[in-house]
Order: sequence, then structure tokens, then C-alpha cells
Amino acid sequence: LAGQASAMNTDEEQLKRMADPDQWPAPGRDFSLTRHSALSDINTDNINKLQMAWMQGSNALRGHEGQPLVIKDVGGKTMLFMISGCPSMANCNVVQGLDLTDSDNPKQVWSYVKKTDRDESAVPRACCDTVNRGGSYADGKFVFGTLDGFLIALDAQTGKEVWVVKWAYPEKGETITPAPLIADNKVFIGFGGSEFAARGRVGAFNLSDGSEAWVCHTTGSDKDVCLTPDTNKANPHYGQAGEDLGIKTFPGEDWKIGGGTAWGWYSYDPDTKLVYYSTANPGLWSPQYRCPGKTHEECNTGAFDNKWTLSMFARKIETGEAVWVYQITPFDQWDYDGINENIITEMEVDGKKRKVLSHFDRNGFAYVWDAADGTLLRATKYVTVDWAEKIDLKTGRPIKVRDHSPLEVGRNVSACPSAMGGKDQQPASVDPKEPNLFYVPTNNWCMELEPQERTHTNQGTVYVFANVYMYPEKPGTTGKIKKYDVLTGKTVWEIPDPFPNWSGTMVTDGGLMFYGSLGGDFRAVDRSSGKILWSRKLGSGIIGNPITWKTGGKQYVGVYSGIGGWIGLPVTAGLDLNDKFGAIGATAMTKAAGLQHVPQGGTLNVFRVYD
Amino acid sequence: LAGQASAMNTDEEQLKRMADPDQWPAPGRDFSLTRHSALSDINTDNINKLQMAWMQGSNALRGHEGQPLVIKDVGGKTMLFMISGCPSMANCNVVQGLDLTDSDNPKQVWSYVKKTDRDESAVPRACCDTVNRGGSYADGKFVFGTLDGFLIALDAQTGKEVWVVKWAYPEKGETITPAPLIADNKVFIGFGGSEFAARGRVGAFNLSDGSEAWVCHTTGSDKDVCLTPDTNKANPHYGQAGEDLGIKTFPGEDWKIGGGTAWGWYSYDPDTKLVYYSTANPGLWSPQYRCPGKTHEECNTGAFDNKWTLSMFARKIETGEAVWVYQITPFDQWDYDGINENIITEMEVDGKKRKVLSHFDRNGFAYVWDAADGTLLRATKYVTVDWAEKIDLKTGRPIKVRDHSPLEVGRNVSACPSAMGGKDQQPASVDPKEPNLFYVPTNNWCMELEPQERTHTNQGTVYVFANVYMYPEKPGTTGKIKKYDVLTGKTVWEIPDPFPNWSGTMVTDGGLMFYGSLGGDFRAVDRSSGKILWSRKLGSGIIGNPITWKTGGKQYVGVYSGIGGWIGLPVTAGLDLNDKFGAIGATAMTKAAGLQHVPQGGTLNVFRVYD
Ligand SMILES: O=C(O)c1cc(C(=O)O)c2c(n1)C(=O)C(=O)c1cc(C(=O)O)[nH]c1-2
Ligand SMILES: O=C(O)c1cc(C(=O)O)c2c(n1)C(=O)C(=O)c1cc(C(=O)O)[nH]c1-2
Repeated sequence: LAGQASAMNTDEEQLKRMADPDQWPAPGRDFSLTRHSALSDINTDNINKLQMAWMQGSNALRGHEGQPLVIKDVGGKTMLFMISGCPSMANCNVVQGLDLTDSDNPKQVWSYVKKTDRDESAVPRACCDTVNRGGSYADGKFVFGTLDGFLIALDAQTGKEVWVVKWAYPEKGETITPAPLIADNKVFIGFGGSEFAARGRVGAFNLSDGSEAWVCHTTGSDKDVCLTPDTNKANPHYGQAGEDLGIKTFPGEDWKIGGGTAWGWYSYDPDTKLVYYSTANPGLWSPQYRCPGKTHEECNTGAFDNKWTLSMFARKIETGEAVWVYQITPFDQWDYDGINENIITEMEVDGKKRKVLSHFDRNGFAYVWDAADGTLLRATKYVTVDWAEKIDLKTGRPIKVRDHSPLEVGRNVSACPSAMGGKDQQPASVDPKEPNLFYVPTNNWCMELEPQERTHTNQGTVYVFANVYMYPEKPGTTGKIKKYDVLTGKTVWEIPDPFPNWSGTMVTDGGLMFYGSLGGDFRAVDRSSGKILWSRKLGSGIIGNPITWKTGGKQYVGVYSGIGGWIGLPVTAGLDLNDKFGAIGATAMTKAAGLQHVPQGGTLNVFRVYD
Repeated sequence: LAGQASAMNTDEEQLKRMADPDQWPAPGRDFSLTRHSALSDINTDNINKLQMAWMQGSNALRGHEGQPLVIKDVGGKTMLFMISGCPSMANCNVVQGLDLTDSDNPKQVWSYVKKTDRDESAVPRACCDTVNRGGSYADGKFVFGTLDGFLIALDAQTGKEVWVVKWAYPEKGETITPAPLIADNKVFIGFGGSEFAARGRVGAFNLSDGSEAWVCHTTGSDKDVCLTPDTNKANPHYGQAGEDLGIKTFPGEDWKIGGGTAWGWYSYDPDTKLVYYSTANPGLWSPQYRCPGKTHEECNTGAFDNKWTLSMFARKIETGEAVWVYQITPFDQWDYDGINENIITEMEVDGKKRKVLSHFDRNGFAYVWDAADGTLLRATKYVTVDWAEKIDLKTGRPIKVRDHSPLEVGRNVSACPSAMGGKDQQPASVDPKEPNLFYVPTNNWCMELEPQERTHTNQGTVYVFANVYMYPEKPGTTGKIKKYDVLTGKTVWEIPDPFPNWSGTMVTDGGLMFYGSLGGDFRAVDRSSGKILWSRKLGSGIIGNPITWKTGGKQYVGVYSGIGGWIGLPVTAGLDLNDKFGAIGATAMTKAAGLQHVPQGGTLNVFRVYD
């Protein structure tokens, strides 16, 4: 497959790889982002014999989110591709290609780090640690983004650049943290930066040469947002083209620094050729500025929604046109970025079999949408939520609670969940055979948020203006893994954890669910009972996502260690933990969870069963 | 023991700990530097069940030499102390104290990094990567040096500073890489810097408050060198006081920038209260400048010996007075630093039972001296050596070979071993029950050295002036572990390795010898047959030294990973591997061994047997 001209559509290639459980061919393993593996050689019977097989340093410290890929037939070899964090441009997003032929003794074939035109200013402009959530592979190319804004395709056999595109501009507040999606011969990607007055957009680039296919914005005119007369046909009350809502729901020109970046995970349906992703908060956490002189109630009529921030988009991969778009949290008052992953499964909902998206939002609700037209089917509270009574399924809008809704400058307000959400970027997993049961890493803390005065409107400079203090909901428990039914809103089981769970989960046909804690404990859980069957303390906190593959006749499980992310930023950036409001509220939580006792790292840890 | 006033002499405390195999109480485990453990729970029968138990990140990249300590009864707990490398002053030599009470799940109790008065210039002034070879413990204090020259005693329970002394001065070329020795209530330490025109010296500081007990120099007047009329009484031909040889054997004032630093390992005999250590090369590798206008033969009469560089010192710990001193390589022409460890064992030599020092020198000879008076008993070639025919046991001087002895500016000369020696800092081990059989990690490469013109004589600036090119003696083999008999000069067995072995060895009563390769392979070897019984690929190259201890009823083995040291500097400092002479000859060897494919790291890796 590798190194050949793209005879087949990449969807075909990728679907073949996804059907082969021996590979981990895409960030979420498949287009649906299930993070489910059909492998079962490692299972509940032999999990006690799981042991470290090998490790590979990433060449850098700082948070290590995301996951490697394992790809067969790269010049005849099975290869693993991994990317480092970004402490500074000298070793920012180092990529390594490992030959797994000798499956217990991988050999680095090449490593790559961009040497020219790097922008050191990207490091302090990353709101939430200088992380990278991985790369994607198709047609012999490994494609990834760099913190300082390059989208790069490497020849997977040699590590040589095939093409390099400048996509995000740190001077405008834009930094690339997400993993690109490859779909339909294109590379789809956004960036982060809503805390730096960026204006969110996504783009698609032709995989063959990096040329731009289309770009669509989160805010701005209908044209900029790529709305069409057909957008939201099934649910006109979500908002439609014709009114430039992406301009009008902002005061003045604020849509130009309106946030709504797309820094999360991207799913894709190759049948319908729709890409699914959602957007972050509007810039500036001092909400009154986005609704000048109005009361809480007046701000929440719809006129100040700040569209299409915190919104769920379904776009045609070919053109970027929005088929449907649903705003999850209109007029954000909490930094409830909507970017969490949208996982595609097929399930029976109220007697009807549907292809749906399940989404555990920062705002504490678990949403279920019809994937084809966006119809809202469920919205249940999966953690403690006090900022809204509920989501009105008919209007699609939350019923907000004023007492827990920050607005006026100087009014300090408590809210659950905190700005880090009931869940942040750490992705959930699901076995498509149990399409409504999700393994969800949750954050169990709340916040006080006191909006502050706005002192500037410059892109590329911190644009938050709020004092945020976060604290555990219940002392001693900061993270939980929940097995959660999105249809009933019931928790099947949960594991309370003293450390936050900023790592994703992975579920396998071996009856297991894997996850890692910020304390460094990598664990295997009986997915039916929630019992922890195995645990091993790695060298640093875990915020990466477990993967699994099979080479040399043996199943392996791998995960990065390397504390970081927003919750770990105080550790990786060496901040003063006694600053109650440091790192926009992270320091107090870091301290409450004792994360200062977790050393930094940057290692891929790989395990297998030893008999 | 901890936290109490020093009722007993620290020798007493340390000897008790050394007699307890459950601890690893000093860098070389004991004062003799045997790196031998009496533990045998992990042994040749169950070694195949050795598995990773836990890891702990060090908080920094760059080379990780040295070893942690494991100490019982630190405020009632068994604690492990570890130190990081030094990429920059922000995380230079981070110390962590881990509570091992839950032996599979260590908890960091404190971490420490000096925050004030740091000297960033130390980083580029470390000739051979910014490494740290560990700390020492007694009387409740953990004592270590920082690259930028501080000697620091921390309260082992809390990590709080007890005292801080400025000992080495980067602006004079001095950087601390060695581990201090605690002996007789004093802290003994030197530093590195002979490649930066430093003038070597060692000092002893009172453990209680850090006050200086004494300081002795390598070069200079007899008084500065702490020679007495009794020095070398048994071997007057080694040189004696009365002539200020430390001045006269240098041209002009060059002794003031004369090198001869003591950056290696320090052994100690608590019976005789003698400390043993040896010294590095004289500054400037362009030998003619140290012997102006003379021929090779004239330079080697003794008049230009550059005393007491490359010399073996036995000093009284109480006063610093030199009981004996033997120059290993007079008038150095190869950078054959004499600093390698001097291991004390008792053995029968030629029918007489003696306490002896065994020393595998950079110059390729394995020396055996009588520990009491320095009498030279053996000097055998343990690797390929062409620069000298032999060491004349009667005179103590090498019979040099002019063809392999660089001298004149512009004359390119080949020599074996290379400047990195037949062995560099990586320490050998020995079981005192087989006191003449050493497990020695060797370097198997040679060099071409072309002396260059001297352009300055400034302290703190690179002061080498030679083009050095290094290459493997035999392509494909760069490192070997040898079981070597210092009495017969015979190799019992050897393990050839594609990667250099820059890690130390450890030998146990479980019939095992442990070592790590720069490729990252950590191994257990049958010490009697030399067969590799077990191997595991760690996350980075290994240049640390294995240790073992017992907690919670289980024996553990630990080793740092983290490529670096002189051989790994091109990797950690990101040098151009196509520069034939980079890092004073390291780049070509790094390339020849393929070390550019080994990622950086900084992790403590801990193993135990799982049944
Ligand atoms: O609004 C944004 O543009 C933006 C970007 C990012 C990012 O790119 O990592 C994060 C966030 N916001 C954010 O709100 C957040 O909680 C967060 C957590 C993390 C992380 O990696 O741990 N990134 C981000
Ligand atoms: O002459 C000196 O002062 C000096 C210092 C050091 C050091 O402090 O690490 C090394 C050397 N020399 C040296 O010659 C050498 O081979 C060397 C290797 C290493 C290492 O840690 O790998 N350090 C040093």
C-alpha cells in the first residue's frame, strides 16, 4: 500500500486497515472513534500476566496526549509512528517511525523534527500545555500538525517531508494540538486558541500534495461558515442560513476574535461522507462583554448565542458544506468547549434503529444526536451539573440556572462541572456491539468563576479575563471512570480515583477496558464488573490514550506516559501552586490532587502477556 | 538513625547499612565500590520472570549516569533518592525522595531543585554531557553536587536544605558531575573541567554544617597538593615531596590551568581512613605545548610529567595528606584521564594476602596496587592497546610507542584505545568472594588525534586544541562486557555488543550480573558463563548503574535510562553527526554505533520477579 500512487480512495484503504484488528490505523482506531479493539489474546483470564515488553522515549517532556499508530505494509514492514510533546521548538513534536518486525525489540528507522521557520512563541501561546494528539496515516504518508502551525505529511518509510503547509498562526493565537483526520483523500484539521482571541476554522487539504480543498470558519458570515440553504433542514430551530448568525450573535466585530476553535477529535462516516466535529468556547470568559448591558435572561434569548461556538458540526468532506449544526451551549458562561469527541454507533433509539453520535460534553450532559440530520435524541447528566436544570429536547436549548451562571464583572459564581468539564479531551470508548454503553473518564470537580474587566482585544495575547478557582466536588475523589448508558442516563459502574483521569479509555473483546491515571497508574478493568484487574505504575502521569495491536503473533497494549494537559500544566510549566487562579484555575486542582508529586515524562510504554 | 545528631561516626552508620543487603546505601553500594549485592532472591533460576514493577521519571532529559540510593529508617521509612540530569538550570539535578513503604507503588514525598543563584553557563561548560553520578547519605542527610558547582545537603525526610556550599566555579571551567563520598563525618568531592582549563582539586567538608575541613590540589606546590615527607615512602620512584613536581613538570605557569580534575568515583577504607581517587588529563590535548620544542623521547623523561594529573591518590580523610600517589600515564598524549574507579578487595598476590586496588584505566591497562603503600603489582592490557608496549612494573612507567603517541601540531596519529579509553566512567563490579574477577564494561574503539595550535589559555573556554576522530576497532562491535582476571590478565568470558556499554555492572549472589547498553537493552547475565539470560528494551539508552534492594519482602533491581555522557552528547545536544570531529570525537562514534536512533530519556526503571 505504502509509497504507491493513490489508486484507491483513502477511505477504502483505511476501512481495510480498520477491519484488521492487528493494526491501530487511526487516532480513534476507526472513523467512528470507538477506540474498540476486536483483539482478545489479552483477556480477563491472563491479564495478571500482562508485563512491560518495551518502551520508547519520545525525545521530549511536556504532556503526552494522543496515541501512536500501528500500520502494516509500510514498505513491507509493520511500523509504529509516535509524536512527542513540545517543550521548545528544538524538540517540538518529534516524530519517530519504528519498525516492529522484531516485535519485542522495535527499531527506530527514522525520526523527524522540523528544523526551519519554527515559531518559539507558540509555546506560551498554547493555553493548556504544549500537547499533540497524534497523527493519521494513508497512502504511505504520516500526517500531523505542529504546535506552531505546520501541517506536515511525511513519507512513512523514510520520514522525509512530502509536503509542508502552514495552517495555523501563533501570532493570531492559533496553535495546533489536535490530530488530523484523513478522509476521502483529504486531510481535515482545526487548531486551538480560543483563549488567545483566535477565530476558529477548519480546513481540508488534499493528501496528495497538501493543496487546500476548502476552509470553513466557526464564526462570520454564512458563506464563511459554509452554511447552505439546506443546512439544518430537519431542525430549522437550530438556526439556518440567511441571517449571518455567526456575525449577528456577537457584539460589533467580536466575531473576528470569536473563538470556537476545533481542537478536539474528528469522526467521519464514509457512507455519507460526513465529517463530525465540534467547536470550543467563544473568546473571553467575561460573558457580559459578549452581551453588553443585558441581564442573564436577556443574554439567553438567542440573540447573543455567539454562533457557532460550542457547536456540533456535520460537514460534507468534499466541500465543507454544513449539513447540520447544533449549538450545544449557547452563550457560554463557563468555558464549556464543545469539542469532545462524537462517537458514531448504530443503536435502537425509542424503537427505531439509527446511526447516532454520542458526545460527553464539558457541560456535563451526554448528548445523543441522529447522525444524519442532527435530531437531538437524548441529553442526560453524566456528572454533577448545577448550571442547567436540563436540556430542553424540543428547543435543543439548556434551561440555565442564573445562580450558577457567571455574567457580570466582579460577581463570583460557583458552578459544576468546572471549566475543565465533566470530561475534557480524554476520549471515551465503546464496543459497537453494546452501542449505548460508553467507558467515560470523568472530571469530578467544580469551580468559582469571577468575570474580570477586559483590558485588550488583541489576537495572540491571553484573552480570558476571569478569576477561576477549581476544587474537588468530594475531597479525595477527583476522577472517575464510568460505564454509562447514553440512552437511559444510568451509570452501570464507576471507579472513583484520587487522581484525575486525563487519559482516554480503550475497550477490547478480551473483556477489558484500559485507562491511565494522572498519578501514573496504567490499569486494566473488567469491563463488565468495573473491577480493576491489573495496574502498573509508569514513570509519569498518563494523559495518553491506550492502543492495542498484534505483531509477531502477540497482542500488545501501548500507552504514553507524560503528565501535562491543562490539568498538568502547572507541573510541566513549573507554576506556583499557591496561586489560587494560576493556569486559569488549574493550579488549585493540581495541588488538591497532589500532582506536584508526579514527575514529568515522555515515554511510550508497551505491554504484552508473558507466560 | 535519620534526623538525629551524629552520635556515631558516619563510618559506623554507613558500615552497618552496607552490611545490610536490603539497602543500597552508597554509590558503589559499599566503600570499596564493589557494586556487589549479597541478595539472591532474584537468581539464575527465576530470572526469566523478572518484570517491570514500577518507573519514576526524573523530571529532565540529558544523560542519566549514576544510581539512586535506597536507605532504611529515614523517619521510619525506607526511602529511595534519585537525581536527574541537567538540560538547563530550571530542572538541573532535580532530587526526588520516594517512600518505598508500598514497595510496588512508591510515593514521591518531596522533590528539590535549587532555585537561586544558578549558573546557566555550566551547561555548555560540561565537556561530556550534563550528567550527575549520584548522591551519598549519612546522618539523615542526602548530599549531592549540582552541575553549576553547589554541594548541597538536604534533610532526607523533608528535602529541605540543611546546608549549601559553593564548591566549583563554572567560570573557571569547573562543573560538578561526580557523586560525593561521605567518610569519617566528612563529604569528599572533586569536579570536572580539564577540557576547560580548570585546575583540579578535591575538598572535604564537615557533614554536620558544610564547613570546609581541607582542600588539596592536583597541581601546584607540594603544600597545595598536600604532599608530606612521608608521601610515597614505600615507592620513592613515584615522586616525592621537596621538589614541587606539581609546578616544575609543567612549562611556565601552566600548572595553574593544569587540569587533573577528580570527576570519577571515590573509594574509602574505613580501617585505614584512606580515601582513594584518581585524576584526569592535563589541560590541552596538543601535547607539544606541555613540552615545548622537545621530541617524544625528551618529553617522556619525567621532566614533563604534568604531575599529578592522571594520578592515583591515597589521602588521609582527616587531613587530606597524600600517603601515596602514583602517576598512571605520565605526560598524557591521548586524554587518558586516570579517573576510573579504584575497587578495594583482598586477594592473594604472588603468595601474599593483600588489600589491593584494582583499576581499569582509560589507557587500556588494568592496574593492581597495594592499597596501603601503592606498590604496583600488576598492569595488564584488558583491551587492545597500541600506545604502549607495557607498563614497567619496576619504574611504574609505560613504555610508550612513538607511532601511536600524538605530539607535534599537525601530525595525525592513530591510537588504541581512543580518548574515551578502554573503559570510561562506567564502573566495573566484583564479588569480594572472587576478589580478582571483575565484570568490566569496555569500549572497543580507536582514534586518530591531530594536535592543533593553541589559540588561548582562558579558564572556562574549551581548552583542547585537537582534531579527534574515533572509529570502532571492529565494525559491528563497539562494546564488550568482560569478566576479567586482574591477576592473570585473562578474560574469562566476554559479550560483544553492537552498542557501546556506558552503563556500569552489578554482580549479585543470585549468580547474576546486570548491565545496560546504550541501545536501551537492560540485561541479566549468568555471571559464571557469560550467557545473557534476560533482556528488556527500556525507553532510552542506559548509562546508569544497576542497583538492587529489598523492600516488602521482595528483591528489586533498578537502573536509570537516559542516553548521554560523552558518547551520547551528540544525541542529547543535537549535534551534527556528519561533523567528523564533533564533541571532541564523539560524533563519528555516535554515528558508527547508530545512536542517533536512540531517543532521549530520564527514567528510573525498577524490576522484580513475578510468579
Ligand atoms: O479553546 C481552545 O482553543 C482550547 C484549546 C485547547 C488545546 O488546543 O489544547 C484546550 C482548550 N481550549 C480547553 O478549553 C481545554 O480544556 C483544554 C484541555 C487541553 C488539554 O490538552 O489538556 N487542551 C485544551
Ligand atoms: O577532564 C575532565 O575534567 C573531564 C570531566 C568529565 C566529566 O566531568 O563528566 C569527563 C571527562 N573529563 C572525560 O574525559 C570523559 O571521558 C568523560 C566522560 C564522561 C561521561 O559522563 O560520559 N564525562 C567525562
